[in-house]
Amino acid sequence: MDSTVTTTAGTAPIEGLAAALPDGVVVTDEATSDAYRTDSASFCPAGTPLGVARPTSTEQVQTVLRWAAAHRVPVVPQGARTGLSGGANAVDGALLLSMLRMNRILAIDEVDQVAIVEPGVINADLSRAVADVGLFYPPDPSSWELSTIGGNLATNAGGLCCVKYGVTADFVRGLEVVLADGELVRVGRRTAKGVAGYDLTRLMVGSEGTLGVITQATLALRPAPEPALTMAAVFDKAADAMTAVARIMASGMRPSMMEFLDNASIRAVQAYRDMGLPVEAEALLITQSDRGPLAAADVAAMGLICQEQGAADVAVAEDAAESAMLTEARRLVNPAVEKLGATLVDDVAVPRARLVDLLTGLERISAETGMRIVCPGHIGDGNMHPTVVFDRGDDAAAARAQQAFDAIMKLALELGGTITGEHGVGLLKRTWLRKELGETSYALQRGIKDVFDPLGILNPGKVL
Amino acid sequence: MDSTVTTTAGTAPIEGLAAALPDGVVVTDEATSDAYRTDSASFCPAGTPLGVARPTSTEQVQTVLRWAAAHRVPVVPQGARTGLSGGANAVDGALLLSMLRMNRILAIDEVDQVAIVEPGVINADLSRAVADVGLFYPPDPSSWELSTIGGNLATNAGGLCCVKYGVTADFVRGLEVVLADGELVRVGRRTAKGVAGYDLTRLMVGSEGTLGVITQATLALRPAPEPALTMAAVFDKAADAMTAVARIMASGMRPSMMEFLDNASIRAVQAYRDMGLPVEAEALLITQSDRGPLAAADVAAMGLICQEQGAADVAVAEDAAESAMLTEARRLVNPAVEKLGATLVDDVAVPRARLVDLLTGLERISAETGMRIVCPGHIGDGNMHPTVVFDRGDDAAAARAQQAFDAIMKLALELGGTITGEHGVGLLKRTWLRKELGETSYALQRGIKDVFDPLGILNPGKVL
Repeated sequence: MDSTVTTTAGTAPIEGLAAALPDGVVVTDEATSDAYRTDSASFCPAGTPLGVARPTSTEQVQTVLRWAAAHRVPVVPQGARTGLSGGANAVDGALLLSMLRMNRILAIDEVDQVAIVEPGVINADLSRAVADVGLFYPPDPSSWELSTIGGNLATNAGGLCCVKYGVTADFVRGLEVVLADGELVRVGRRTAKGVAGYDLTRLMVGSEGTLGVITQATLALRPAPEPALTMAAVFDKAADAMTAVARIMASGMRPSMMEFLDNASIRAVQAYRDMGLPVEAEALLITQSDRGPLAAADVAAMGLICQEQGAADVAVAEDAAESAMLTEARRLVNPAVEKLGATLVDDVAVPRARLVDLLTGLERISAETGMRIVCPGHIGDGNMHPTVVFDRGDDAAAARAQQAFDAIMKLALELGGTITGEHGVGLLKRTWLRKELGETSYALQRGIKDVFDPLGILNPGKVL
Repeated sequence: MDSTVTTTAGTAPIEGLAAALPDGVVVTDEATSDAYRTDSASFCPAGTPLGVARPTSTEQVQTVLRWAAAHRVPVVPQGARTGLSGGANAVDGALLLSMLRMNRILAIDEVDQVAIVEPGVINADLSRAVADVGLFYPPDPSSWELSTIGGNLATNAGGLCCVKYGVTADFVRGLEVVLADGELVRVGRRTAKGVAGYDLTRLMVGSEGTLGVITQATLALRPAPEPALTMAAVFDKAADAMTAVARIMASGMRPSMMEFLDNASIRAVQAYRDMGLPVEAEALLITQSDRGPLAAADVAAMGLICQEQGAADVAVAEDAAESAMLTEARRLVNPAVEKLGATLVDDVAVPRARLVDLLTGLERISAETGMRIVCPGHIGDGNMHPTVVFDRGDDAAAARAQQAFDAIMKLALELGGTITGEHGVGLLKRTWLRKELGETSYALQRGIKDVFDPLGILNPGKVL
């Protein structure tokens, strides 16, 4: 926990807060608190909270923060707790602030192509609501059926579409935020452009609940794209797949998906379900085009590039049903890998030109630590998820897995990359953040934290 | 000037700085200082500087800032001084820091599609250099043949392409920045994605030299688009043009340009050069598509939408030459309006749904102040440039022009918009920034300024 926090576990008059809010907003029974204690990260500690607040309005959030500031109680904002870095885990003596009940879509404006939403809206619910009027909210983290817009904003979530459409931050126009002292502030704007003052909106996005609590967001939408068509290519040599990626990305076709499975991922999926995948292949590349009348020509051209780069097998879908079949292997990676054992999912991003070096490095780390490393990823962005797999309940293996996990982050930094492309820092990568930023940048970030949260009560011990 | 700055005009030992740097870096003669005193804003005051530093390396910038911090000398970073808000104007006793000589393109990486540049590179030089290898740097402010990447970054410059491609900030991956105390920091990254810590990159972009001096930028590039085709439509009623805009923007065609000329703009251009423009028309809409094989169908479909919405005349270009003819009217607005007299160029942005209200409001303001207001703009983004025109040398008219200028910003805020879509705050809109932000947001911004520049020496009196 952050050293500036005076923990008041057990002594804070949470009954006073409960009384100041409608019945059921504040819950302190142990079962409920326990249910909200952790997000979906492996191997991250979680403390014992005072209780859970589940507000239904901005005013209630303000009441919570005013109380927390007055009593120096740490507050841990939470969405659907699907995060993979421990950013939503409880700290001792904290009030957990679940935003799940603020889940209204307040407006979808078709002329300005913006949606105004509360933070508890599920990503998929928003995506479907805007699709109903011919619009498109691109950010699509794998958790999109479960995770909230607020959580997506707090972590600047990525997804499969980023290679063409960008990340969550690229679709945020403005935010309503409750600050650490309970004050309400609006940052950003509703318009497409605006340069009035410093960009506090982007500062808030990705800050993992350490700078304020997002209570409303104005999100940019786009016209809905045409259904995507898919190309899948099998490569004996991963390096050839990388060359194909570089050529496709340079082509102007703007793939709307560009996913990679390494040999270990292919094996895991084939073991999970017999899809006839080539278990000797070093790489499976799956790409899409959603350029409407150009999509068929695009996936054909992508396939040709893969063949020219030595692909052993290329399949091109001619319709949505075939496309779904070809993307099935990617969709199955997560459940397939979870079947293999306990996992530590990394989230590095490296320049595309260094992807081959990343794979070579992972082989070395695997050999040195004796750990199995499975590496699927959003290859078009250089954002890979090397996943260390080990036996559940084997403490020695868990320790070596942590070594491998750390070595992967070190490797990413050496390759000019980042320790986290889309999952965030949370608890999991807090010590590594400082290595990536350097002391000067870290000090600036701490200074910003102090401006927004001088008492250090907002999600202490996370990120910085 | 900011109250925290102790001005040391005339007493700072600038000779010591000059001696610490190579010959010619620091220039103190009055003629040179005078030449660098102002940017391109109208009616903004400029102080008397100590001199001009024109460094050629990051180390020299560090030397300048260390000296400035030691002697509490204000520093005003400058690019090509094409800005329209006075952000680069001298303040009394300041050292002007011209970045024009740091003008090297350090790398263009075709695999990662990034360019690494010094801040003094002219936008057009970068755009042409990347085009030579089939890549595209979209940000295209009107000043692109003159303005620098550093200036574009400092103001988060927009342009004509934003409606499809976004603004300068959307193409910035990472920055090297010299802080107010001379320390060097790198923010951001080279990779496409990254969420390690707070987004200091976006904080720096648009901060108008008040948080640090950008000495290097890593910029995202895209594959070059196909040449654009153009559609132009004349409307008797501006409201019909707005409806057409909304329909085109909702169509999924993604116009790569969407420009608007109001009646006064049309008249100004026609008076400047006889292009056969319809001087009774309330609106001329000019749009482009650069979707390659789809472009011809796109501009035809845009033309059809305009006809359906009551356009009196529609012209669709079949090739680049015809497209150039159709865009000529837009290109001539600036010189044509300058011929009319002295100008105060505003830069508001409003939700697209409020554009008709903006035009109605401008008519009211024009009537109330007796000022001519010409209103061209980037209508697809709702970013308009209402320009108050008045007689040069008429002080009473200048005062009324300022009233009209202020009334336009007030109107934009009432319509849910912003006082500045792309030009920045500088000196010109400083008092209005606080009205747009509100006191809480303003206080956060001041807090951030203090973290980065505790002595208040970086471009004091600008923005905040």
